Amino acid sequence: NTSFDPKKHPHRRYNPLLDEWLLVSPQRANRPWQGQREETAEENRPGYDPDCYLCSGNIRANGDRNPEYKGTYVFNNDFGALLNEEVEFSEKQSGFFTLLPERGINRVVCFSENHSLTLPEMSVEHIKNVVDVWQEQFNELAALDHINYVQIFENKGSIMGCSNPHPHGQIWAQSSIPAMVQKTQDQLKSYYEKNKRTLLEDYLEQEITAGERIVTENEHFVALVPFWASWPYETMMISKQKRENIAEFSEDEKESFAAVLKDLTTIYDNLFETSFPYSAGIHQSPTDGKEHPEWHFHMHFYPPLLRSAEVKKFMVGYEMLAEPQRDITPEQSAAILRNLSTIHYKKK
Amino acid sequence: NTSFDPKKHPHRRYNPLLDEWLLVSPQRANRPWQGQREETAEENRPGYDPDCYLCSGNIRANGDRNPEYKGTYVFNNDFGALLNEEVEFSEKQSGFFTLLPERGINRVVCFSENHSLTLPEMSVEHIKNVVDVWQEQFNELAALDHINYVQIFENKGSIMGCSNPHPHGQIWAQSSIPAMVQKTQDQLKSYYEKNKRTLLEDYLEQEITAGERIVTENEHFVALVPFWASWPYETMMISKQKRENIAEFSEDEKESFAAVLKDLTTIYDNLFETSFPYSAGIHQSPTDGKEHPEWHFHMHFYPPLLRSAEVKKFMVGYEMLAEPQRDITPEQSAAILRNLSTIHYKKK
Ligand SMILES: O=P(O)(O)O[C@H]1O[C@H](CO)[C@@H](O)[C@H](O)[C@H]1O
Ligand SMILES: O=P(O)(O)O[C@H]1O[C@H](CO)[C@@H](O)[C@H](O)[C@H]1O
Repeated sequence: NTSFDPKKHPHRRYNPLLDEWLLVSPQRANRPWQGQREETAEENRPGYDPDCYLCSGNIRANGDRNPEYKGTYVFNNDFGALLNEEVEFSEKQSGFFTLLPERGINRVVCFSENHSLTLPEMSVEHIKNVVDVWQEQFNELAALDHINYVQIFENKGSIMGCSNPHPHGQIWAQSSIPAMVQKTQDQLKSYYEKNKRTLLEDYLEQEITAGERIVTENEHFVALVPFWASWPYETMMISKQKRENIAEFSEDEKESFAAVLKDLTTIYDNLFETSFPYSAGIHQSPTDGKEHPEWHFHMHFYPPLLRSAEVKKFMVGYEMLAEPQRDITPEQSAAILRNLSTIHYKKK
Repeated sequence: NTSFDPKKHPHRRYNPLLDEWLLVSPQRANRPWQGQREETAEENRPGYDPDCYLCSGNIRANGDRNPEYKGTYVFNNDFGALLNEEVEFSEKQSGFFTLLPERGINRVVCFSENHSLTLPEMSVEHIKNVVDVWQEQFNELAALDHINYVQIFENKGSIMGCSNPHPHGQIWAQSSIPAMVQKTQDQLKSYYEKNKRTLLEDYLEQEITAGERIVTENEHFVALVPFWASWPYETMMISKQKRENIAEFSEDEKESFAAVLKDLTTIYDNLFETSFPYSAGIHQSPTDGKEHPEWHFHMHFYPPLLRSAEVKKFMVGYEMLAEPQRDITPEQSAAILRNLSTIHYKKK
């Protein structure tokens, strides 16, 4: 019998944040691809687009006009998935038909008035302004009694369902703790109760010792490919010091966070010399007024691309019905990303 | 205060098969869409394509030649995610770096030698042959000691990562029970232990009484939009009698299954008058040699389209980080599907 080699043989890995397994098939990386190819993003956009509903001074789909903003700009989503209105609810819930009303607030955060930019093309100072806004928004929404979780995220690229290339992210704040955050919290909590340290403090320590999955780091943050990553170039940014949420960040930490955001997104763009699509978002403690010593701030990046700007990984069939599956190993992905420049390819 | 109306107000629903919640936003169905549009499938393909690696008599990417088959044809995937080889494994597993080798077999099941067909365009008799093959394959793989679960599925359409339009599905058989199947099993088991009936027996009874989520049914099967469906036109087929797996189907039941497959996929094609993409797959009892009175055969259909052949639902950002989110309600989707003809639009 051959002996097991994780670089060659199919295996499963355990994800302790979601208490789930995934299938890794390193031997499959070189299969030929005859399937769908994505259109690549238009690379040169104007700084102002008269038809963009996010540009300064333009009219949105609901008829409101944006102010002549410079820098960041936040407004309530005109077609939000949540409504802030309180509704009366008394229906008895039976087992198979259980539903509960959900209240919340959906906001759009424009990162810049400049239609042509993306995070990696902004200065660290400019990205720091975005981080400031995330912190302010978190504090403002956390103060509302009926808001118990604040989900900050960005969908980048049309392949990720982003309907407008103007640099922006979203905030969905709601009364329940969403399913995946709740799952993560349960895992963090049982770890913390046993070890009196956060799961991510201990994990980060072991990853720094191992070294092979680290992509980039600076004073206060590390970006790495998790041992259990399911997307080909999935990464996670973790604060070196335990912070429960973004409200706890000092000025210095916010700047450090902005810098690691710039480096990671630049590395991503350099990978296939394209504006690299992803969905990214922050996981942090709920705003439910309870103590959360188990929480440890982190941000997930889920990019869909596999082999080039045109060929993505399809999470379909087996992945939808059975479990996530990846080809290239997390260690291979981390080595590729780590060796890329933090100077943007367009600036070279 | 307004009183709650599930057709108007955001709410969360509980999925008892996965023990997960999802967000339903009925008020969001009419937001304007300026984002990515999909290319629609080429509608008229030849019955034989000399470049197709699945057509009768053609050479595949690895150099093997397909026989001159008629009807169904099964072969081992040339670039499978699993390997059948046994490997020696002794490494000590530490907490955060837990991995285990995984063995298995990947097969491709061609549904027909005719390159131009899809399931809804085949006769019930022809689809019954496909169901026969699924049953045979299940029995053959179940008999192998190291195979403990058999995942039968189909990715249809290039939007679902299907790299070849020739009518075919896949079978991934492996030594572990995959994550989502295990989760479903845990849920089915705890229900069964408490109630001495399967969760789906009781659920189906209540759905038949409610009526509003049923799409189509025949002697032995029901297709419905689950109360907790997350994809816009997601459906589930459930056997009316409790069957643990496909091996238990009689000739009569296989024919009934083929007929409901034809009806449902025809309804799907008629929805947007396009060859309707989806990932679909069977969930059934593991082949691990244990007793599984909790299992109840069902098949999930996860179609990506939302509003037209070109506009899909993006499960991104919030959905990847927080929880699944849908716009149109399951009841609305079921009503739309139920009112569509079971005669294929191309035949009219
Ligand atoms: O095996 P195929 O058809 O080449 O590949 C397709 O289905 C697989 C199983 O769902 C996925 O892992 C792949 O991402 C997808 O492209
Ligand atoms: O809100 P947007 O950008 O219009 O929409 C996008 O992001 C949302 C949140 O991840 C998703 O629910 C939508 O499917 C997606 O198209």
